[in-house]
Amino acid sequence: MTEPSIFIHKHILGIKELSPQDIHHIITTARSFREISNRPIKKVPTLRGKTVVNLFLEPSTRTRLSFEIAAKRMSADTFNLSGSSSSTRKGETLIDTARNIQAMNPDVIIMRHGRSGAPHLLGRYVDCSIINAGDGAHEHPSQALLDAMTILDHKQSLAGLKIAIVGDIAHSRVAHSNIFSFTKLGAQVCLAGPATFMPADITSLGAHVCTSVGEAVTGADVVMALRIQIERQHDPLIPSLREYAVHYGINRALLKLAKPDVLVMHPGPINRGVEMNPDVADGPWSVILDQVTNGVAVRMALLYLVLGGDKSA
Amino acid sequence: MTEPSIFIHKHILGIKELSPQDIHHIITTARSFREISNRPIKKVPTLRGKTVVNLFLEPSTRTRLSFEIAAKRMSADTFNLSGSSSSTRKGETLIDTARNIQAMNPDVIIMRHGRSGAPHLLGRYVDCSIINAGDGAHEHPSQALLDAMTILDHKQSLAGLKIAIVGDIAHSRVAHSNIFSFTKLGAQVCLAGPATFMPADITSLGAHVCTSVGEAVTGADVVMALRIQIERQHDPLIPSLREYAVHYGINRALLKLAKPDVLVMHPGPINRGVEMNPDVADGPWSVILDQVTNGVAVRMALLYLVLGGDKSA
Amino acid sequence: MTEPSIFIHKHILGIKELSPQDIHHIITTARSFREISNRPIKKVPTLRGKTVVNLFLEPSTRTRLSFEIAAKRMSADTFNLSGSSSSTRKGETLIDTARNIQAMNPDVIIMRHGRSGAPHLLGRYVDCSIINAGDGAHEHPSQALLDAMTILDHKQSLAGLKIAIVGDIAHSRVAHSNIFSFTKLGAQVCLAGPATFMPADITSLGAHVCTSVGEAVTGADVVMALRIQIERQHDPLIPSLREYAVHYGINRALLKLAKPDVLVMHPGPINRGVEMNPDVADGPWSVILDQVTNGVAVRMALLYLVLGGDKSA
Repeated sequence: MTEPSIFIHKHILGIKELSPQDIHHIITTARSFREISNRPIKKVPTLRGKTVVNLFLEPSTRTRLSFEIAAKRMSADTFNLSGSSSSTRKGETLIDTARNIQAMNPDVIIMRHGRSGAPHLLGRYVDCSIINAGDGAHEHPSQALLDAMTILDHKQSLAGLKIAIVGDIAHSRVAHSNIFSFTKLGAQVCLAGPATFMPADITSLGAHVCTSVGEAVTGADVVMALRIQIERQHDPLIPSLREYAVHYGINRALLKLAKPDVLVMHPGPINRGVEMNPDVADGPWSVILDQVTNGVAVRMALLYLVLGGDKSA
Repeated sequence: MTEPSIFIHKHILGIKELSPQDIHHIITTARSFREISNRPIKKVPTLRGKTVVNLFLEPSTRTRLSFEIAAKRMSADTFNLSGSSSSTRKGETLIDTARNIQAMNPDVIIMRHGRSGAPHLLGRYVDCSIINAGDGAHEHPSQALLDAMTILDHKQSLAGLKIAIVGDIAHSRVAHSNIFSFTKLGAQVCLAGPATFMPADITSLGAHVCTSVGEAVTGADVVMALRIQIERQHDPLIPSLREYAVHYGINRALLKLAKPDVLVMHPGPINRGVEMNPDVADGPWSVILDQVTNGVAVRMALLYLVLGGDKSA
Repeated sequence: MTEPSIFIHKHILGIKELSPQDIHHIITTARSFREISNRPIKKVPTLRGKTVVNLFLEPSTRTRLSFEIAAKRMSADTFNLSGSSSSTRKGETLIDTARNIQAMNPDVIIMRHGRSGAPHLLGRYVDCSIINAGDGAHEHPSQALLDAMTILDHKQSLAGLKIAIVGDIAHSRVAHSNIFSFTKLGAQVCLAGPATFMPADITSLGAHVCTSVGEAVTGADVVMALRIQIERQHDPLIPSLREYAVHYGINRALLKLAKPDVLVMHPGPINRGVEMNPDVADGPWSVILDQVTNGVAVRMALLYLVLGGDKSA
């Protein structure tokens, strides 16, 4: 692993903006924080008196919880604003909402928004740090960082790994951030999914589109299934969940094509029996719950780094 | 009162699983914590750095608030997940939701769920402690514990007391937990309510079903009215609220049949003029607000005990 | 400015109940707290172990956030109860809800309610302090206090100032609290707005009703535009937003009629292009974001003062 560089980012908007050195720096920092969550007293004073606002304009359970746990374990004060309680529905522009929050002197705004680019827009208008917790189908950088961290718990490096990502690539910010991250770190990314789930310009990102899930999984070091995001499809893009499961669901037979030490990943929440069979999700290949555990550590690292933790250390 | 035993429970799933010694142990512990809420600085460091997740998959105001106040007065960090923001509606199983929360290293999950047995199911899948904050029409153990504590503030013992519970027994987890608790502690429990509110097998729990509310209240040491849970009835089981009030509402005339030092209780929220007349709810017999105050103390005790407070002391 | 008097108010229900000395006392206290929000560690231990309940029975983003930030920066524990999760929809009376919260020993209840007078009612039933965060179209005292503080950052005194308030006076608790505050502090308040937005008895409050927005703004030291509260009108009271903007929207041409050093204010959220043109909202006259910053400081002061901070100091 590379020697940690100086971390210079004020915002975490996407993996696109991060260098491989940045990614390794974040993961190294996250590893140093991970054991805090195993202590009897899960709390360090590092971010005491810092104000962290969770501005979630799309529903979320685990990402919001993960960021909130990360912030409180660093002793920051956290504040939750959700879509339903937000002023945006009162006709206020997003920029005004952000500037109003900014006027209350937060240190970080963690933001989820249904539109791609919303956090990037705000980053130009506020003084505090913005962490993108998912913007439309665009990016979800903390998810990609926890995914890379989880793979690196088992593999020396991502360089030369074959990583299969299966499912709804087009609508998945997780897929996009992971394609950026995995290719930056030297892995070969192979995509599989129904044609309606595959964006036309995807190869420009450096990923390889396979004609079948079997091709993608064959020889793979990592198999990542994506969630069918039913709530984000206005028209059904697949004939049925049953048919999807038959053609694209990850099962034991399919995993026989992968490397023997393959890692199975899923960003959650899982539709069991659709994207993945229960025996795969709960099997020895699965690192799905490690992803969740690493998520808290990655988010602690992000909060620490954007607030200049390295410089004060 | 019995000498406090060693408290060995990791979860608090129901009164059914607790011994009379356990119940007294919890109440004794709660009494020692009660005065904290009367101090100018209502905070002790006992649970500092502990992570308490409120997973409320059914709406709740006071129970969630009571647990959150209890946790924060012990210096724990609290996190609220509600039904509307939960992943469960995204097709995730309850076990996956719980295992995902577990992967973030909480110490306690406080859980309310519409289905009976949900907390018991989770208790087999997670490492942290589960406290049942109400599961369907099954159990609501912290409510029964605060009720027993409130009675014991006024009576030497529950042994030999006559306790009338009036109302919707069939749909009430409060009734079920209290029947378990009161009979374990030696009281005679007399039930009254419309036939549609009386479960067929209720006498197997050791309670006596009365043919009229007058019979139940006559000579009673405690009269507990239950709330008409209109939101949990798909079809109306009573002709009208007016008629219910006439036949089953607790009023002054009815209370004349009880012991002179009768205690009047209600788990709240009260439908005034339905289950209980205002002059009864606000009268000298009423210990309804003492129940609420004791609720915070009981929940402090439960958090302390499941986290092994006795052993570290 | 007057020498700070002893602050004797247990509740903050409205500006109507406050003397000019009280208002100056709050603003002086707020000024002393304001710099805390600019520190690297934005936290003082002043209210450690105090319990602050945000009971918001109407939706709110910024006011709730502002109070929550104020409370946590003083180290109080905060608890949020919102309308959708409240027992009030289960048939409980507001007084019972408040008495139940009271039984859990809070120190302050911050309350927003759709009905005028609701906080005043509760103030007679609970032992803790009540701060009105907006009751119907009646009062919103903390908003008026932050508005006065913002003006006094730029003007020596309010005495003799001409302050124009433009818009929906009838439905605006902000207008009502500000009319009370500005007239108590010696300013001349000039109102302008469509006839359907002007209450019949408004002159009894000491404000002057102008026949045009131009008359109100001419020579003004302060121009405050109110938000068109679309969600609070059951029937549209204005023909169209476009027409409103033409006749009552604040624009550069209109501001030329005011004093050169006029301050432009808005309680937010702004409907840009309706109540106010973007170049005015973002222009050099605008102190709109200063209002938000001062809001946190005023709310820190209110929490401190109702909890007897002066006496313990």
